[in-house]
Amino acid sequence: MEEYATAELLDSELVVRSQKEASTIYNKGFFGEPQSGGSLKLSMIEAVFLINLGRLNVTEAGEALEIKDIMRYAADSSPEFEIKYIVYSDLRTRGYVVKAFSEQNVCSGIDFAVYPRGGNPKMPAEYWTIAISERARFSIDELQEQVKVASGVRKKLMLAIADEEGDITYYEVSPSNPKGKVEKAKLPATGAMMLKDRVFLWDEKVAEAYLRPEFYGKPLGKGIQLSLVETAHLMKKGALQVMDGRRGKPIEYDDFVKKARRIQHDFDLRLCVYEDLKSRGLIVKTGFKFGSHFRVYRGDPDKCHAEYLVHALPSGYKATWPEISRAIRLAHSVKKEMILARISESGIEYVLMGRARP
Amino acid sequence: MEEYATAELLDSELVVRSQKEASTIYNKGFFGEPQSGGSLKLSMIEAVFLINLGRLNVTEAGEALEIKDIMRYAADSSPEFEIKYIVYSDLRTRGYVVKAFSEQNVCSGIDFAVYPRGGNPKMPAEYWTIAISERARFSIDELQEQVKVASGVRKKLMLAIADEEGDITYYEVSPSNPKGKVEKAKLPATGAMMLKDRVFLWDEKVAEAYLRPEFYGKPLGKGIQLSLVETAHLMKKGALQVMDGRRGKPIEYDDFVKKARRIQHDFDLRLCVYEDLKSRGLIVKTGFKFGSHFRVYRGDPDKCHAEYLVHALPSGYKATWPEISRAIRLAHSVKKEMILARISESGIEYVLMGRARP
Repeated sequence: MEEYATAELLDSELVVRSQKEASTIYNKGFFGEPQSGGSLKLSMIEAVFLINLGRLNVTEAGEALEIKDIMRYAADSSPEFEIKYIVYSDLRTRGYVVKAFSEQNVCSGIDFAVYPRGGNPKMPAEYWTIAISERARFSIDELQEQVKVASGVRKKLMLAIADEEGDITYYEVSPSNPKGKVEKAKLPATGAMMLKDRVFLWDEKVAEAYLRPEFYGKPLGKGIQLSLVETAHLMKKGALQVMDGRRGKPIEYDDFVKKARRIQHDFDLRLCVYEDLKSRGLIVKTGFKFGSHFRVYRGDPDKCHAEYLVHALPSGYKATWPEISRAIRLAHSVKKEMILARISESGIEYVLMGRARP
Repeated sequence: MEEYATAELLDSELVVRSQKEASTIYNKGFFGEPQSGGSLKLSMIEAVFLINLGRLNVTEAGEALEIKDIMRYAADSSPEFEIKYIVYSDLRTRGYVVKAFSEQNVCSGIDFAVYPRGGNPKMPAEYWTIAISERARFSIDELQEQVKVASGVRKKLMLAIADEEGDITYYEVSPSNPKGKVEKAKLPATGAMMLKDRVFLWDEKVAEAYLRPEFYGKPLGKGIQLSLVETAHLMKKGALQVMDGRRGKPIEYDDFVKKARRIQHDFDLRLCVYEDLKSRGLIVKTGFKFGSHFRVYRGDPDKCHAEYLVHALPSGYKATWPEISRAIRLAHSVKKEMILARISESGIEYVLMGRARP
């Protein structure tokens, strides 16, 4: 049976003084920071974890401290201690070597460097990890910044979301650059009719050319029905002239966009991302069934499944984590990748969010 | 090849005058309402569908009307015509006999009676169906009312949600009465510690009794971590005394609830549904991973999967349909049933929302 090491709590530092104990603790799991002279400095999180493992006692002024007291002490000394501890403990239990970033390095809110199983802290980290409470707010701007920082030094960014029972869901987040190989259709100019919030194209022969190879619209009777973004896009290209179905008069592009905005408050966001995805050679259809803006195909929808679900978000967008969690889980369950498209003044940035299984 | 029948448009009524044509149209698909004298009155929706099938021409004052003109006419005469038409057409194409409820009967907003394939409108309807645009607002109160009306006459209620491309997702909605068979634990009174938004119970032996058979909490180190609703429930039962982890002082139940509300703005809703589900003999755990409030087990979670995802909603709750769609889709993809728990002054009503495949 393993013997307990003892750490002393003094001036909010935890030190294992015995050289023998210090080296045992460090060598089995790379806990703490070895000090000159052979002692070992432990962080609060490491200490709590080692106590729970039965490898450590902590004393203060010669008296043994209980785990409760140490938890209280740790919680006092660090905000979000309980979330960080839960994530740390989970990763350590899975066999990873985990090191907290020192306070100076947390400019982007990244909490841990996670080293491969059987590895050590001198190797390159496998993940950079952020510990997040399910109750924290999701911010696309913060996430985008963190993705940039991590991918800039070629680190995989992993988010660890702890739910209210302490169960953790891991997400891997990375920059994305979706590309397809769909040929552009030759579209005959034609007329279509707008009825309330829908646009119908009734010419049977023309409908064919719109349906393939670019898969505009959806068959309805002998014609097709077009979505609002498809219609705007086709009007812009000069292919489509739209009539107001009730008044029987043509609608100009600008007026159509105004109507579309009234029907769909986030129409501009959608159109912006729709057109960017089209320009990348992708087939873009509504993602309603999956609760997202678009489902996106890299090739012929009759031959392959949609590969991505894409959701358009403005910079500054915030949400609750359960919403994000649901979106990723859903994408995952239908074997698609979830991509958030963040629209800012400098353009569109795509961020892929997938479930990770560390 | 089938011959065209001709309907005349007069004073906003559509009538097939020829007795022979009228009986052909009626007998193959039960379109229209046979009139005394042998003629057949058609609704606009039926007419548009028959035109698209190539079975009908429409004339007005002796002149043939184009499909475009009839669509415009129909859209003018009925709000939401385009949505209703899309759903009608989809169900008819799937082989169902579909009849619109006459205007007088639409108190609950139910649009169609759907009769079994190969059946006729004199049989009991298989579904009552509501045609809804993805862009309409979801209202739990309206839905609850519609479920009541339909289930009161033993009809299955089916919602047909048309997305922006006219693709339809069907949901079957019914009252639910979830029940389980979990034995109640004998819980030793004990202390726990609240640290920020989490509650920890450190006593190893006591933790065992909480973990089984009722599955309170989640193991963390040697103890367990409890959720806020679990903690409140256990305090109410007199099993748990909670200490404030930082101040080291006991927290009264009322103060705990105040703290919990600050952490989780919908805490009261959650607790209310949590306690009702517990009283029904169910195991209730967080549904965070699935984007809902709870996942619910009818038996031992080690032996069976969670059967339901339950989301607590206040009466008056509204949402967008894509949100609801996402929740149901997700539940379905993980083989669970989605239940909405509507909390009103008269109690909690459970509504099961499943995908339908008509």
